[in-house]
Amino acid sequence: MSRQLFNPNIMNLGVPPIPHVQRAARAYDKSLGPLIDLSQAVPDYPPPASLLEALSTKAGDPAWLGYGEIEGEPVLRAAYARDLEQTHGSRLTADNVMITSGCNQAFMTAIMSIAAPGESVMLINPWYFNHQSTLSMLGINTAHVSVDASTGFLPDPDKLAAALTPDVRAIAIVSPNNPTGAAYPAELLHQIYQLCVKHDIWMILDETYQDFLPAEHGQAHDLFNENFDNHLIVLSSFSKSYCIPGHRLGVAVAGTEVLQQMVKIMDNLQICAPRAAQAALAKCMPELTNWRADNRDQINQRAATLISAMDKLPGWRIDAMGAYFAYVQHPWTNESSFDVAERLARELGVVTLPGEFFGPGQERYLRVAFANVVSEVIALLPERLSA
Amino acid sequence: MSRQLFNPNIMNLGVPPIPHVQRAARAYDKSLGPLIDLSQAVPDYPPPASLLEALSTKAGDPAWLGYGEIEGEPVLRAAYARDLEQTHGSRLTADNVMITSGCNQAFMTAIMSIAAPGESVMLINPWYFNHQSTLSMLGINTAHVSVDASTGFLPDPDKLAAALTPDVRAIAIVSPNNPTGAAYPAELLHQIYQLCVKHDIWMILDETYQDFLPAEHGQAHDLFNENFDNHLIVLSSFSKSYCIPGHRLGVAVAGTEVLQQMVKIMDNLQICAPRAAQAALAKCMPELTNWRADNRDQINQRAATLISAMDKLPGWRIDAMGAYFAYVQHPWTNESSFDVAERLARELGVVTLPGEFFGPGQERYLRVAFANVVSEVIALLPERLSA
Ligand SMILES: Cc1ncc(COP(=O)(O)O)c(C=O)c1O
Ligand SMILES: Cc1ncc(COP(=O)(O)O)c(C=O)c1O
Repeated sequence: MSRQLFNPNIMNLGVPPIPHVQRAARAYDKSLGPLIDLSQAVPDYPPPASLLEALSTKAGDPAWLGYGEIEGEPVLRAAYARDLEQTHGSRLTADNVMITSGCNQAFMTAIMSIAAPGESVMLINPWYFNHQSTLSMLGINTAHVSVDASTGFLPDPDKLAAALTPDVRAIAIVSPNNPTGAAYPAELLHQIYQLCVKHDIWMILDETYQDFLPAEHGQAHDLFNENFDNHLIVLSSFSKSYCIPGHRLGVAVAGTEVLQQMVKIMDNLQICAPRAAQAALAKCMPELTNWRADNRDQINQRAATLISAMDKLPGWRIDAMGAYFAYVQHPWTNESSFDVAERLARELGVVTLPGEFFGPGQERYLRVAFANVVSEVIALLPERLSA
Repeated sequence: MSRQLFNPNIMNLGVPPIPHVQRAARAYDKSLGPLIDLSQAVPDYPPPASLLEALSTKAGDPAWLGYGEIEGEPVLRAAYARDLEQTHGSRLTADNVMITSGCNQAFMTAIMSIAAPGESVMLINPWYFNHQSTLSMLGINTAHVSVDASTGFLPDPDKLAAALTPDVRAIAIVSPNNPTGAAYPAELLHQIYQLCVKHDIWMILDETYQDFLPAEHGQAHDLFNENFDNHLIVLSSFSKSYCIPGHRLGVAVAGTEVLQQMVKIMDNLQICAPRAAQAALAKCMPELTNWRADNRDQINQRAATLISAMDKLPGWRIDAMGAYFAYVQHPWTNESSFDVAERLARELGVVTLPGEFFGPGQERYLRVAFANVVSEVIALLPERLSA
């Protein structure tokens, strides 16, 4: 009788995954010990004391009370450009950097700048769920190529090329990957970039977990040495690297022309990212190189602990891992990952995300965010999961 | 030769208005005295000391470092629900409140929840420019009804009804208005609401300037006493009321069903609003009733000063005013407001926004954000503008 109340693109979205599993976790009675939360990717250690202090100082400083520049604070954009020189060997300037309220917002802004409703963006399945839901809510179609354990969850560039249809405006890549943890080799990223150049489309590269690449992986890629202005948008997050998700800061690195489009979107979306935290991060970033390297080593250590823990569990298998995540096969061949994850959370107090949140055909998988908990807790998994 | 690089919906957006006029202002040589900036609506006085202190304390408190609830911090949602009781005489709870990173984001989230690309939303011309540009960038069409000085820039409900086509999903209202300053009488807001109910569409009411209604206006409206769940979304901002635009906090008040849709959008858009500032505001809000009333009085005083200042300027006419803004006719009948505003900024150091940023047919107008500057500076306008 009544007309449609809501936008069907939004009605059709599922509920956000994290609150969904956290509800199941709240039903756990703690009979086997405290909750082991391996669901959301949040560092379990605090930010450096200097950053926490700067966050406090800048938030109380009237200098950051007014509206800021839409592109972000010049000090942070410059600090990040310098940081990219260390991490990516690139010679970019603040003009190539735009600050957002977290990397989800950077993705949404990037996507809107280059794809209109009815067009398509290609994702790799399994994908980061917010990428897919962001596309859906904007009325942009998801094209996809599926990967699996046989290739270490890495896509074959020829298969990507074969799957490209004329409506595809971009290929979005996450490396190190969420959910699988797979780190794309620099050479593969380069091949995907070349494919995008050839087809005159965009490569969007989400490097939220860039700081947690194992040292031996070397530099993530050398794409910033290309003439990338019209084909590459690289996104990252300060949430994981600096342990400040609650302060909501992320970043996009791209050519000035596409950033101009993104600025127009950002003005409507929220005018500018919160300013005091930008100022604090700009101040501290240059001194935190060693602190970040230490965290990477610690997280890599947790990865090793997880491997030996899962080894003790018959029927379980780690099919991929790296950076923050392991992508793990559970032993219940006939059960959906939704049911398995819910049961593990509710009955055993082990909270993971079901593979099915990340795309079709992921019933056998759970995503384990091992970076969330210390090695001692990871070591408890064999006993807990056998209960 | 090359394919389309950018989303045409974004390409077609103009540059953001505020940075545009600020560029002209930078060319002013200060020969007539310091810049008088009446462009962006920013309070020129600081937030209360208790709030600034709480912002600092919470930003340094590890409790707010992790990801927060998508809907916003329960403490702030509850505090705002209580505040609404005072300001709007309503009996709502935290369940009706969602926190966003500013009111632009609240608008975008509200619009996306109820209108899909290709549908329409009705605005009142002149409109708040970010409303129109948000619709455009989402591929949503703008329907509009124009108002003018003859009705105090208030729309006639019958004209709104006559202009409604089946593709219109909502009527968006700003009261007190940006750019005109006009405060919609409660009765008019009620009529517009009833029109929306009758046509089974949404009323979106942006009350960013609610705190600056003159005391004699009385309560803004009583729409929260209606059975409003499926027809009303009320938006507001903490930027102006608490002088903290740089901390980026806004709010939406609505039924739980539409908030559920908005939460799905918010998860993709930025997971949650920045947390420490939410905690700080929740702590301080209950004690700031008098502080807010004092600011309202002070801003209303500035309005009076502006009226007497403009009185001294032949050819200038205030056609509407209230809350933060005056909508002023400039004397140059054959010049576009773009040129006039640019000339005033560059040559006289008086920065206003051209009416043409706010919709078609606004060539004769400048928007004067008089709340930005103290009465002593407003009093300088006659001399400066006669130069
Ligand atoms: C791949 C990926 N991108 C983006 C994000 C969002 O990060 P932010 O906190 O910066 O919005 C996440 C968070 O989990 C992520 O895993
Ligand atoms: C009518 C109106 N809505 C929303 C906003 C945006 O406010 P916020 O700072 O909360 O994003 C403004 C700011 O000028 C405004 O005038």
